[in-house]
Amino acid sequence: MTEYPSKLLEEAVNELSKLPGVGRKTALRLALHLLKEDKKDVELLGNALIKMSQEVKYCKTCHNISDKEICDICSNPARDHTKVCVVEDVRDVMAIENTSQYQGVYHVLGGIISPMDGIGPSDLSIEALVNRIRNNGVNELILALPTTMEGDTTNFYIYKQIKELDLKITTIARGISFGDELEYADEVTLGRSIVNRTLYKDSLSE
Amino acid sequence: MTEYPSKLLEEAVNELSKLPGVGRKTALRLALHLLKEDKKDVELLGNALIKMSQEVKYCKTCHNISDKEICDICSNPARDHTKVCVVEDVRDVMAIENTSQYQGVYHVLGGIISPMDGIGPSDLSIEALVNRIRNNGVNELILALPTTMEGDTTNFYIYKQIKELDLKITTIARGISFGDELEYADEVTLGRSIVNRTLYKDSLSE
Repeated sequence: MTEYPSKLLEEAVNELSKLPGVGRKTALRLALHLLKEDKKDVELLGNALIKMSQEVKYCKTCHNISDKEICDICSNPARDHTKVCVVEDVRDVMAIENTSQYQGVYHVLGGIISPMDGIGPSDLSIEALVNRIRNNGVNELILALPTTMEGDTTNFYIYKQIKELDLKITTIARGISFGDELEYADEVTLGRSIVNRTLYKDSLSE
Repeated sequence: MTEYPSKLLEEAVNELSKLPGVGRKTALRLALHLLKEDKKDVELLGNALIKMSQEVKYCKTCHNISDKEICDICSNPARDHTKVCVVEDVRDVMAIENTSQYQGVYHVLGGIISPMDGIGPSDLSIEALVNRIRNNGVNELILALPTTMEGDTTNFYIYKQIKELDLKITTIARGISFGDELEYADEVTLGRSIVNRTLYKDSLSE
């Protein structure tokens, strides 16, 4: 076992090495970096983490991270509240918002169904989603979960819960990325992009 | 610019992304991980960093990180205080201590001379080292700085300061690592290891 010259340093390394992707060597490097920094800056870092952890709220409507009870997107009257896009987590919301192509609202599941990781439907905000669709006049549900076994399972689980409702259910388009060369695309993506081909004149309107 | 759904999250990401080797994507991943963790655990992390930054001391003798005025190594009467090993930072002390092969004490420079990074002799604890050698009956100074341009410069600077004193100055052995194959060694290492060859019977005594 490595002996640390200081219990305080050891404690900091122990805590830092609990972060995902941070081993003990990296944790020591980070701790020594912080020791060289201004004490005030380290205080800012430590307090920012604690404050975030204690004060961040989750939007009561879409379950996205927010500073308020209802997030800025859900409380924005200019957004189309009849369209709900289902995503895994807040990063997906940020990615879609960055495109400026979507005017609807979101529903953040907080994960996807993954029996291997012990995550079942009850760990996610699926029930809240179904209630939201039933009660809030949602016309279209856009499934934007990852195209993995777990994503497909979650999509299908949601579909089964709401298929009786009067609602358009769509998924985001899958296909060859813009700028990609066909020869480097994987077989599944290329195969599906041929099966699900779209009218050329539709692509012109973009 | 990416819009964050929460100022608290954004603040945490800003602070985390100041860490070396942590970009904004990694910082966001870390922040979202912390949001899923227990609030108490995040408090432990934040407070460990702040406490370390505010309370860690530097040993008055060897300048190593310590919880006390004089570190455990310097205050240990069983160590050989006539031998001082000069290293760049605390990680080198930990690495040498891990070998259990050294019974002397250390002197931590806190860096090496590097004009490119604006680090000169006065930023390091070199003056304290010279005073220590003059006043404390040191017989041997072991230079264990990295074999880089900066390390060599620092070695030579220290050597110039103390060459008049009655003192054995050594450097740690450089050569082919144990278990390494000659064909993969770099030319400089292999060349020097032939020039500085040692008596076979000396290697037997290890």
